[in-house]
Amino acid sequence: MPRALVLEQIRKLSLRDIDLPQEVGPHDVRIKIHTVGICGSDVHYYTHGRIGPFVVNAPMVLGHEAAGVVVETGKDVTHLKAGDRVCMEPGIPDANSRASRLGLYNIDPAVTFWATPPVHGVLTPHVVHSANYTYKLPDKVSFAEGAMVEPFAVGMQAAQKAKIAPGDTAVVTGAGPIGIMVAIAALAGGCARVIVADFAQPKLDIAAQYQGILPINIGKRDLAEEVKQLTEGWGADVVFECSGSPKAWETLLDLPRPGGAVVAVGLPVEPVGLDISTASTKEIRFETVFRYAHQYDRAIALMGSGRVDLKPLITETFPFEESVAAFDRAAEGRPGDVKLQITL
Amino acid sequence: MPRALVLEQIRKLSLRDIDLPQEVGPHDVRIKIHTVGICGSDVHYYTHGRIGPFVVNAPMVLGHEAAGVVVETGKDVTHLKAGDRVCMEPGIPDANSRASRLGLYNIDPAVTFWATPPVHGVLTPHVVHSANYTYKLPDKVSFAEGAMVEPFAVGMQAAQKAKIAPGDTAVVTGAGPIGIMVAIAALAGGCARVIVADFAQPKLDIAAQYQGILPINIGKRDLAEEVKQLTEGWGADVVFECSGSPKAWETLLDLPRPGGAVVAVGLPVEPVGLDISTASTKEIRFETVFRYAHQYDRAIALMGSGRVDLKPLITETFPFEESVAAFDRAAEGRPGDVKLQITL
Amino acid sequence: MPRALVLEQIRKLSLRDIDLPQEVGPHDVRIKIHTVGICGSDVHYYTHGRIGPFVVNAPMVLGHEAAGVVVETGKDVTHLKAGDRVCMEPGIPDANSRASRLGLYNIDPAVTFWATPPVHGVLTPHVVHSANYTYKLPDKVSFAEGAMVEPFAVGMQAAQKAKIAPGDTAVVTGAGPIGIMVAIAALAGGCARVIVADFAQPKLDIAAQYQGILPINIGKRDLAEEVKQLTEGWGADVVFECSGSPKAWETLLDLPRPGGAVVAVGLPVEPVGLDISTASTKEIRFETVFRYAHQYDRAIALMGSGRVDLKPLITETFPFEESVAAFDRAAEGRPGDVKLQITL
Amino acid sequence: MPRALVLEQIRKLSLRDIDLPQEVGPHDVRIKIHTVGICGSDVHYYTHGRIGPFVVNAPMVLGHEAAGVVVETGKDVTHLKAGDRVCMEPGIPDANSRASRLGLYNIDPAVTFWATPPVHGVLTPHVVHSANYTYKLPDKVSFAEGAMVEPFAVGMQAAQKAKIAPGDTAVVTGAGPIGIMVAIAALAGGCARVIVADFAQPKLDIAAQYQGILPINIGKRDLAEEVKQLTEGWGADVVFECSGSPKAWETLLDLPRPGGAVVAVGLPVEPVGLDISTASTKEIRFETVFRYAHQYDRAIALMGSGRVDLKPLITETFPFEESVAAFDRAAEGRPGDVKLQITL
Repeated sequence: MPRALVLEQIRKLSLRDIDLPQEVGPHDVRIKIHTVGICGSDVHYYTHGRIGPFVVNAPMVLGHEAAGVVVETGKDVTHLKAGDRVCMEPGIPDANSRASRLGLYNIDPAVTFWATPPVHGVLTPHVVHSANYTYKLPDKVSFAEGAMVEPFAVGMQAAQKAKIAPGDTAVVTGAGPIGIMVAIAALAGGCARVIVADFAQPKLDIAAQYQGILPINIGKRDLAEEVKQLTEGWGADVVFECSGSPKAWETLLDLPRPGGAVVAVGLPVEPVGLDISTASTKEIRFETVFRYAHQYDRAIALMGSGRVDLKPLITETFPFEESVAAFDRAAEGRPGDVKLQITL
Repeated sequence: MPRALVLEQIRKLSLRDIDLPQEVGPHDVRIKIHTVGICGSDVHYYTHGRIGPFVVNAPMVLGHEAAGVVVETGKDVTHLKAGDRVCMEPGIPDANSRASRLGLYNIDPAVTFWATPPVHGVLTPHVVHSANYTYKLPDKVSFAEGAMVEPFAVGMQAAQKAKIAPGDTAVVTGAGPIGIMVAIAALAGGCARVIVADFAQPKLDIAAQYQGILPINIGKRDLAEEVKQLTEGWGADVVFECSGSPKAWETLLDLPRPGGAVVAVGLPVEPVGLDISTASTKEIRFETVFRYAHQYDRAIALMGSGRVDLKPLITETFPFEESVAAFDRAAEGRPGDVKLQITL
Repeated sequence: MPRALVLEQIRKLSLRDIDLPQEVGPHDVRIKIHTVGICGSDVHYYTHGRIGPFVVNAPMVLGHEAAGVVVETGKDVTHLKAGDRVCMEPGIPDANSRASRLGLYNIDPAVTFWATPPVHGVLTPHVVHSANYTYKLPDKVSFAEGAMVEPFAVGMQAAQKAKIAPGDTAVVTGAGPIGIMVAIAALAGGCARVIVADFAQPKLDIAAQYQGILPINIGKRDLAEEVKQLTEGWGADVVFECSGSPKAWETLLDLPRPGGAVVAVGLPVEPVGLDISTASTKEIRFETVFRYAHQYDRAIALMGSGRVDLKPLITETFPFEESVAAFDRAAEGRPGDVKLQITL
Repeated sequence: MPRALVLEQIRKLSLRDIDLPQEVGPHDVRIKIHTVGICGSDVHYYTHGRIGPFVVNAPMVLGHEAAGVVVETGKDVTHLKAGDRVCMEPGIPDANSRASRLGLYNIDPAVTFWATPPVHGVLTPHVVHSANYTYKLPDKVSFAEGAMVEPFAVGMQAAQKAKIAPGDTAVVTGAGPIGIMVAIAALAGGCARVIVADFAQPKLDIAAQYQGILPINIGKRDLAEEVKQLTEGWGADVVFECSGSPKAWETLLDLPRPGGAVVAVGLPVEPVGLDISTASTKEIRFETVFRYAHQYDRAIALMGSGRVDLKPLITETFPFEESVAAFDRAAEGRPGDVKLQITL
């Protein structure tokens, strides 16, 4: 039986042997896992035992941001071979569902997704996965960066939904890992500059390393005023709400320009108040985002060509044997931590 | 001095002489007004004295849905001549503003709009207007229909924002005049069928005259259930919220399909509660609408070719001398009244 | 062995017994065929033995525009049952191909398509087909109309590619069956009016039955001049080229307005001459169309709601026993024939 | 009388005094010109005396890529003041034309454009221009870079028309100044990588300085093969044709992926051959480009934030007194020359 990081129940993690399916079907590959990033959702299952309707009722392996090496391929797999360095998309849809046929496989209700109950994640030395959702990494992209493709794909999905026109000015509210990923994706996706707003200066300092990101500490400065000044009173072309805070929504409509867009990335636990009348006077468009579809190859291309460098966001790496400690550290939520990773 | 229907102050209307600007500039036309429709906003100024930030502080002529005949043209006007039957777009933007240059003239903050304080409306025998916002009516389109172009243009703007794909299924919540206009525009704009939902059976009966409109009395039937059944559990491609009721927003997200859109047309007076998490699992897009831009010629083309017939919506017509009575009737809000018009 | 209309070789058809696969897989349905339309491509295989790279090297059953009744369902089929009246999409893609995953299954190079060598068509009493590409017909839609969904879906694909804005004016060059289908789809998809241009008056007379279609006999009148007059010198929003004639392309750029679109539906056998400089001064967008994707349910919805009526286009019906005669008649290309069908 | 570089007639330039309009209207500014870039169109007027329908029939000042300093403002100008460093959009439309009102001011037939007969250009110490088309330069952007905004705006227009999705792969055929500008704009607009193809190695070497640009010398390597290999046989998302060579069009359709786009930037003098059938099997979209609209502020924002650096493209600078020599040098068309500029 393989060893894995198992969430036994709320607030109880163990690194132990567990029985996991290992059969390689004709369209599957077996992957030796190298690096796994810790995501806020992993931590949330650990500390809360659930996310919305998804409840941890039985022991579940954590982890879904992963990169590794192909060690075996199913008989019908043609685009991968043993030895290939890869990263994996954690969600597998029903290819024949109505949503998948439209190209919207991320919102197919039948998707199964790693480390989302009752599906096991990948903090374990070997996993079997659909080859169709396994992507080769360019030589230049390390395993650590490969394990960043998953969260960056969320940023890419947000950037694509925004329908950025080249040279746009964007605002990102909330400088957590996803907020910074969104800002980087927005720049890569055509923005000239992205104002990133947060209260936590260490997070802003990390974001500010990227050329084109303008950090604003909203504990000290007025965001709407700064946006107005930077855009000659016109407003931002796109606003990405990444804090998930209902409070952010109270003043959000001051930020976009007439005809601008708001992309909701952060997920508030309660409904937010939305002033339709104010939104209408500017004819604001609102987009929502659920994970990602068709973003892995694009994200990998941006990383492979050097247009996007995510290495500055990996702030600490733990060995597999210290996985539990890594999760406890992640649960602390230190302001200077962006992405913690585990290597196997 | 010309005679006009003047809103003296809240709840006080008089048909009296008033001094109005009559100079025809080089790009203007003078129009003899034939028909003016009564809009909910006209009635709201009458009964409440204000709409949001727009307050009636001085006597103001009402009316902005108008058709008539050109009687004089400015020296630089080339596309119109005396005798032309026309209808008029009530809002005039600054052609050189940032919004106008982008083609978004409806959300130019500098727009002046008939019967929006302090700008006079057109319930008076003659008005002077910018020729650029004056449109010729085809022979087949009557003055009464010409005066319907303005509210129908709101429906057209909503339909265009929806980005309807041919054969879509839509839902309209709220069967007031604008809701019905939106439903007709959605059909004209490509929908195969539009479910119109309301509590008022007389309004639904009027809407149901149009082929492709499916009326649902939500006092008797469950809207989400009906939509689900009609779409094999998939949901509507587009939902147009036209009631302006915060209550409608509580269950609105049950209606669209994965990847669908919600177009907010009705303007609730308070912020509505929006569940971002639920919206995100379907990646719903939200659009807002402010009046219209570039819709008059399109609306007129649809009416001129016979694809759209708005005559069934004109439920009563009053002579100019009975304008005050017409407004009192409109203020009653009878369930069988859709559009009341005044002829001069 | 079932009986079928078999193209033995170029110019040789026989109605005879032939061995056809009859196994119903878990996701398949068996259908009793009721009506099959004759398409120009069927006739072209008959008269020329090939279409581009597709060559008839072995006997092949013809026919791909079909409607019928489900008589048996595979064990995993849930949305259909025996007795359902249905029509079928003739092309089956690989659901996991790169194109299919993007929602572009029509341009998946792995598509297999009825009556495209070496795949048999459906002019035979029973066929087995993927349930995922089999669509229920509403009660109001007859088998004859059901067999029209296939060619109408081509029109729908063209209309969707055009990105029609409600109230647009379109031009269709070429009033063959596909040209008329495109015109009907363009109207259903939001156009106020569609100018249909051809030399053959009988075809124009058939098109002119539809409200909103303006026929122009280009043997007698100048198309560019007519478009100019109808649009006050501005031009058409969309031009659908459906003649496939290189000559049509010579003057096509006179028709669209600045910022307009040209949708190429007809397929000229040789490259056409395109004046990029002229196209650029109006920033024309060009779209191309290959069959259709995601159009069947939309087409059926438009027909089921009464927004689209294709019955006037069915100009003659033949019994199955007279299939060869039907094809000979189709090969004549009489100007008054639009759609010929065969009933089994 | 001011001094200016005057094209007297074909192949005859002189630096001499000439009478030019100097009145500053209420919405105008007077600008002291600092830098003017030499464009291929300027050179073409010099060597050929015409471009298409535009013929040099009278002496005309050349130059339209310019930056300078505001020295006087009209009475209604509010967003600029004397001393502001600026660059200018050379085309002024009729703000009330049908095209301008739609936001398509670049394709307004009434546009007047610097150095396009009979309108004078700006190779002269002072010019008067519409303040609405005069843009402030950020401190970080030099006059030399400011004079590059004009050609870069063409690249921006092409990139916007392409509707790049973040992470796309593009191909640019032709590495002239515009081809390189397009490649840089495509990267800034979201591409992960841009393959630039040309025969001239010096041009490719200049392009290759930009991270993400992959140069291909098509004298030595097969472009279609390289694209196929780089994209695993799929093809490029976007192909920008920038050579204007009819020969490039012969094999262009091998490059895009199914569902991809071709943007025609180069303007062949004759119609090119376009194989509609081949284009249709991949459902290729074609876009055309005419100058630019709404790109100056976006281009300046990208340059101001450091996302775009055009300085490597300025390969030589001449003093105003050597303008004629500068034009002779430009007319040579040396392979290592990208942009030549003149300072006043």
